[in-house]
Amino acid sequence: MRGVSERGRGYRVLTWRDGAVEMLDQRLLPHRVEYVTCADSRAVADAIREMVIRGAPAIGVAAGYGLALAALRSEADDPAGLRRDLASAAETLRASRPTAVNLFWAVDRVLAAVARPGLDSVALLRDAALAEAHAIREENARVCERMGQHALPLIPDRARIIHHCNTGALATTDYGTALGVIRAAHEAGKGPHVYVDETRPRLQGARLTAWELRELGIPHTVIVDSASGHIMRTAGVDLCVVGCDRVAANGDTANKIGTYNLALVARAHGVPFYVVGPLSTLDLALPHGDAIPIEERAAREVTHIEGEQITPDGVAVANPAFDVTPAEYITAIITEAGIAYPPYEESLPQLVEAARLQPAR
Amino acid sequence: MRGVSERGRGYRVLTWRDGAVEMLDQRLLPHRVEYVTCADSRAVADAIREMVIRGAPAIGVAAGYGLALAALRSEADDPAGLRRDLASAAETLRASRPTAVNLFWAVDRVLAAVARPGLDSVALLRDAALAEAHAIREENARVCERMGQHALPLIPDRARIIHHCNTGALATTDYGTALGVIRAAHEAGKGPHVYVDETRPRLQGARLTAWELRELGIPHTVIVDSASGHIMRTAGVDLCVVGCDRVAANGDTANKIGTYNLALVARAHGVPFYVVGPLSTLDLALPHGDAIPIEERAAREVTHIEGEQITPDGVAVANPAFDVTPAEYITAIITEAGIAYPPYEESLPQLVEAARLQPAR
Repeated sequence: MRGVSERGRGYRVLTWRDGAVEMLDQRLLPHRVEYVTCADSRAVADAIREMVIRGAPAIGVAAGYGLALAALRSEADDPAGLRRDLASAAETLRASRPTAVNLFWAVDRVLAAVARPGLDSVALLRDAALAEAHAIREENARVCERMGQHALPLIPDRARIIHHCNTGALATTDYGTALGVIRAAHEAGKGPHVYVDETRPRLQGARLTAWELRELGIPHTVIVDSASGHIMRTAGVDLCVVGCDRVAANGDTANKIGTYNLALVARAHGVPFYVVGPLSTLDLALPHGDAIPIEERAAREVTHIEGEQITPDGVAVANPAFDVTPAEYITAIITEAGIAYPPYEESLPQLVEAARLQPAR
Repeated sequence: MRGVSERGRGYRVLTWRDGAVEMLDQRLLPHRVEYVTCADSRAVADAIREMVIRGAPAIGVAAGYGLALAALRSEADDPAGLRRDLASAAETLRASRPTAVNLFWAVDRVLAAVARPGLDSVALLRDAALAEAHAIREENARVCERMGQHALPLIPDRARIIHHCNTGALATTDYGTALGVIRAAHEAGKGPHVYVDETRPRLQGARLTAWELRELGIPHTVIVDSASGHIMRTAGVDLCVVGCDRVAANGDTANKIGTYNLALVARAHGVPFYVVGPLSTLDLALPHGDAIPIEERAAREVTHIEGEQITPDGVAVANPAFDVTPAEYITAIITEAGIAYPPYEESLPQLVEAARLQPAR
């Protein structure tokens, strides 16, 4: 499991190989390291929906390659036909999951790449789609490392950190967002200790984050999500750090269910609450978080664990996959272009403008 | 499973039968209804520790019968020897779980009953111990129904209620504390709807509360613990109601892990947060909640579900079974003697005095 890939990791989250996308099947972690090969865009959409791959940035990367696959597999013999096939594949990909805006951002980006003038053959369009998918992936890695560097001054030595869900290499294809911040602090010798929210219902913290932290050698303790207040009150916590699936113009942030509770608990204890995400997670067209669509997932995620039924037969369940944390509870939003502080209506557009003038790519 | 016992329930939480205590094995619910028979006080202590029976009032009832069993099984042939055996059994029972004060209260109560003057034979002492255990159990039922009646004015029609852990008949041997309040509102035609916190790590909400609510015909929806804020923000919640394991003199309340988070989330939304418990759960000798011992349970409760391992091998876990909710977050404490409001240093002793003058028994 160890030592076979770049950057010291023994697993490959997502790989373009022989004209197909190979994804680590995150549903099987931490027990088994197995890969799923997606040979067409529909398979990529299915993998996103079924959470073979998850995490907003990683979903964006996967969607980019999904369109590249659509271009490769298309039987169209002229650019117009290929673009029609891409538009159709884009619809399928967009319908896979509703909340993470990176999905829509990546799809739009590849569509824009193939809409450029001068691409007057099927072959050129295919090259353009694949090149854009590769670019999204490569930028992701650099962007994550930059977020980690920006955040360093916010992380005290021996910081006790609560982290929710999974935001590491598994969620981004490389390095990580919130977990990238923790990793940067670790690599800088700050000696962080991570309290890992297990993150019901799908247990991404207990399954994925604990696994990644072990691989990275970062000390950590798994807790149930509802223990965060007790840990703050008794052990003490210096900061909370989470990723994000969509950030509205006012800073309201959709992220994994439980993020909002953690933010409220942090506020009650005066603990800083940081959101980490690339600019591609911003959706400045939305004025506030109530406009963000929240995915409701199957009841079975709550009623069953590892295939075993927990609840009485037929019980009613509400299973929102995400919640919205109002901006007022967010201390800062860390992006590759720098750190945004309230008021986010002003600071977020400034970061976008800064990135436009000096792009990460 | 239905229709065989008094009060319309098809199960018996705890029964004195043929000189032994029969307990419903709550670890197997909701899938199997099986019973464990405890023939001596050590078996009762084991059942409490292993959570065959749980819930502060039910633990108290079980401990009372544990001492009755110690009296029956003792081979002492004089009152002094029997009292020594009871003192020894009391130590074993007290060591079974540390947080719920009802355990200690019930043990002390049976010991006081057998310390009364005039009990000058082994037979009289055995009768006194068993009579006191029966009395604790019978009072429990009446006390719970009185709490439900006291709380009625606090419950609006069609109240949307978040409930944490399990506080029903399973937790009390009859009717319930917080769930008793919900039941009283239901029986009064108020039509409550309950959001059932699943209550990690042992899932008492998903397993037990959902099961009891179904048996009672009370509409309910199971949610993961960390979804409470999202539900308050989007669906709307009228009140939260929880039980308690120990209440200090200033109103600080130890209860199942996650209670404190829920209280903080409720406060942020202006949602009333009610604690329900019998006076036997008060520990007015403790000035505040930091003096309440918090049980740390095995990591396996977090790392494994239904015997399946979730986390990576050997992961570090913190598993506090309880937390302390500071009194400032508690809207009111509902007891059989009435409702206490802040400042609890004044209102709780007043209720105790009222109960002394007009006891529930």
